Order: sequence, then C-alpha cells, then structure tokens
Amino acid sequence: MKIEILKNVLEVNDNLANDIREKSDKSKTLVLNMMSSPGSGKTSILEKLLPKLLFNGIKTGIIEGDITTTRDADRIIGNEIPVVQINTEKFGGDCHLGSEVVKPALDQLHYEKLDLVIIENVGNLVCPAEFDTGADKNIVVISVTEGEDKPLKYPLMFRVCELSVINKVDLLPFLNFDMEQLTANIRQINPNMEIIKISAQTDENVDALLKWIQNNLKN
Amino acid sequence: MKIEILKNVLEVNDNLANDIREKSDKSKTLVLNMMSSPGSGKTSILEKLLPKLLFNGIKTGIIEGDITTTRDADRIIGNEIPVVQINTEKFGGDCHLGSEVVKPALDQLHYEKLDLVIIENVGNLVCPAEFDTGADKNIVVISVTEGEDKPLKYPLMFRVCELSVINKVDLLPFLNFDMEQLTANIRQINPNMEIIKISAQTDENVDALLKWIQNNLKN
Repeated sequence: MKIEILKNVLEVNDNLANDIREKSDKSKTLVLNMMSSPGSGKTSILEKLLPKLLFNGIKTGIIEGDITTTRDADRIIGNEIPVVQINTEKFGGDCHLGSEVVKPALDQLHYEKLDLVIIENVGNLVCPAEFDTGADKNIVVISVTEGEDKPLKYPLMFRVCELSVINKVDLLPFLNFDMEQLTANIRQINPNMEIIKISAQTDENVDALLKWIQNNLKN
Repeated sequence: MKIEILKNVLEVNDNLANDIREKSDKSKTLVLNMMSSPGSGKTSILEKLLPKLLFNGIKTGIIEGDITTTRDADRIIGNEIPVVQINTEKFGGDCHLGSEVVKPALDQLHYEKLDLVIIENVGNLVCPAEFDTGADKNIVVISVTEGEDKPLKYPLMFRVCELSVINKVDLLPFLNFDMEQLTANIRQINPNMEIIKISAQTDENVDALLKWIQNNLKN
C-alpha cells in the first residue's frame, strides 16, 4: 500500500512537471534546476551570475528552496531580480522541491514573461534527484572540497543532470584533490555530462556558465 | 492515510531503536551515529580515529551506510576493525539509515561484545536527522568549507545532535570563513551542543574527539 501511494505521488508530481514544461516551452522560458550538497556554493554562484544575466538583458527569476529561513533569498534579493522563497518546513521539512511547490512559485514569478528561471533546490545530493521539478535542465554543483567520489556514491543525481558545475577551484592548491578522477567518475555515471569548472569566490570561469545558459535559452 | 502510514513507520522505527539501546546499555556498548553533508569528511575522520581507538584498546565496530558502493568501507577495512556495509539501494535508495537496517548490522558485528560502534550515516543533512538509529549519541560533522549558515538552514540536524565536529580547519587560512559566526549559529539552534574543531587531513585535534569518545564509553 505504501508503494502504491508513493507511485501516485510521483505520478501527480510528473504530470504537473510536464504541465510546467509545456507552458515554459510555449513562453520560451528556460527553467533550470540547480542541486547540490549543502554548502557547495549554489547561492554564491547565483550572486556572481545574476549581475551578468542582468547586464546581458536576460530577464531572470529565482526560486529559492529551503527547509527553513530565507537566508539564501536575502543574499540575492539586492539584484533587481525577482525571488520567490519556498520554505518546505510547512510541508513537513521536505528534503526536496516537488513540482507541486515549484508550480505556484513559477506562477508568482509570472515565468511566462521571463527568459530564464533558476531554481535553487534544497541542499541535498539524494532526494532532489528523485523528483521532477518541471525544469528543462538539471544542474549539479559539486565543490572540490567534497572529494572525487561523490558521483559514484550519489549516482542518481549525476544521472539526471545535464551539467556538472565544479566549484571552489580556487582551493585546489590547498587540497589533495584529483580533478581527473572526479571528471572520470562523473563520466562513468553519465558519459554525456557537460562539465564547467569555476570559482564563485574569485569569479573564475563563471562566464563559461553564463555562456552555457545563453546557449540553452529558448529564444 | 499517507500520514497514518508514515506515523506507523516512525513508531516501528522508534520501538526498534529503543530495543537497540536497551541491549547496548546492558552490554555497555556505546553506539554513535555520525551524520553530515556529503564530503564533509566522515570517512577521513574514521581513518584517523580508528588506529587511535585500536591503540587505546577500545573494541570498536563500524557500520557504513551508503546508497550504493562500498567505497567508504573499503577505505577503512585495513584497520583490523570489523566493518559492516549497509547499501540502502535495495531499500529504494534510502536517504538515511533507519533502525530496521542498523539492527541487523549491529547483530552482524556482535555489538554486545564491543565497547563502541560508530555508524557512518548516509551523507545528507536532512533525512538522517529524522530517524532514530538506536544510537546513544548523534554527532554532526560540518566542514568549514560549507559556510557558517548550515545550522540555521538545517536546524533539525543540529537539534538532534550532542556534538558538532567542525572539520577541515586546515583550510581556514584560505577561506573567507567566520568561525565565531558558525559556533554562534550552532548554539542558537542547540545551546548545549559540544563543539570540537579538527582537521582529519592533518590530524589536528583528532585526539580531542578520541577523548570525547573515551569520556562517553559506558564501561
């Protein structure tokens, strides 16, 4: 019975996710879902990215997912870019964002008028990978301080993503870290994964991420 | 109906967790549950800690929780300390360890003959905090590369733990990180939290963690 209910929950989630994509295709809005462990730098990446998006005239909205607090939204709210905060606490402290909470947030942003929406999912390498948010593309952020083995240990996350952003490369000189091993591990799980190495701290190569977004815009 | 089933699942989990503690109290076995984000250094801490435990004659067993792979168990298997690996993949890729998977692992270790069992939970700051494993004490590991705000964003984890191990302090010179802010955030969520700052990389202060464990042994 438990399995039956779970199946229904996932089915409802998937149907709503498909509705989101149907609408965002029509309005030519690119919806990105950014996932990662806690603390790998999703919000810091947004802090560097948003002024660039603004400068390039890309109409952007942000959805911030958190169990509690509005800290991440607060960090980026200064950027003249609309932010909707989802706190999953009222849904029982959910460890992920499902399409049922993303849809009203998208509507609140009037996403049909935007070129781009970036969803910052709850910090978690496990559960968010299991739920379709309705995004067009999934991005996983991984920090070099997390070690090389994460793709092998959390394979579903790396299977559902099109792009791996490897963050905090400014710390490489101080770490015992094998970048080739990480990229080999990523490709072992997902041979087609695109990989961009950046430092949100120093802004190194964040332009490559901007370019990737620009190449994926629908209009 | 979904809520009813969830309640039952949690009740079964809690009952079994209490059974574990009843038995470990009788046998004077300290059971610790170590939780953290992926990549904050749980396994590296064990690699440094286990030889010290061995040297001090503390009979120890390890339970390694992972969604898939035996990488963590493989890393510590050389230490003459028994390791049982739990892969949650067969339970649907569970994002946490429940007492129903911990109990058979404890039995396989013959934990009643040990002084200490350390459970390395699945890397996840959310879900593992929601499930009583039957451990006597919960430990959260947080790396300084994850930022100061994690206690505020993942409060349940910091509420259920007795000890915060702040890892990777060797990287502090290279980070824009405010240690006082982190400890203040921890204490805001849990005023009684014990805090130990270490580097598993350089072995700095890992002896303080050893001492904490020794002070908490049941015999």
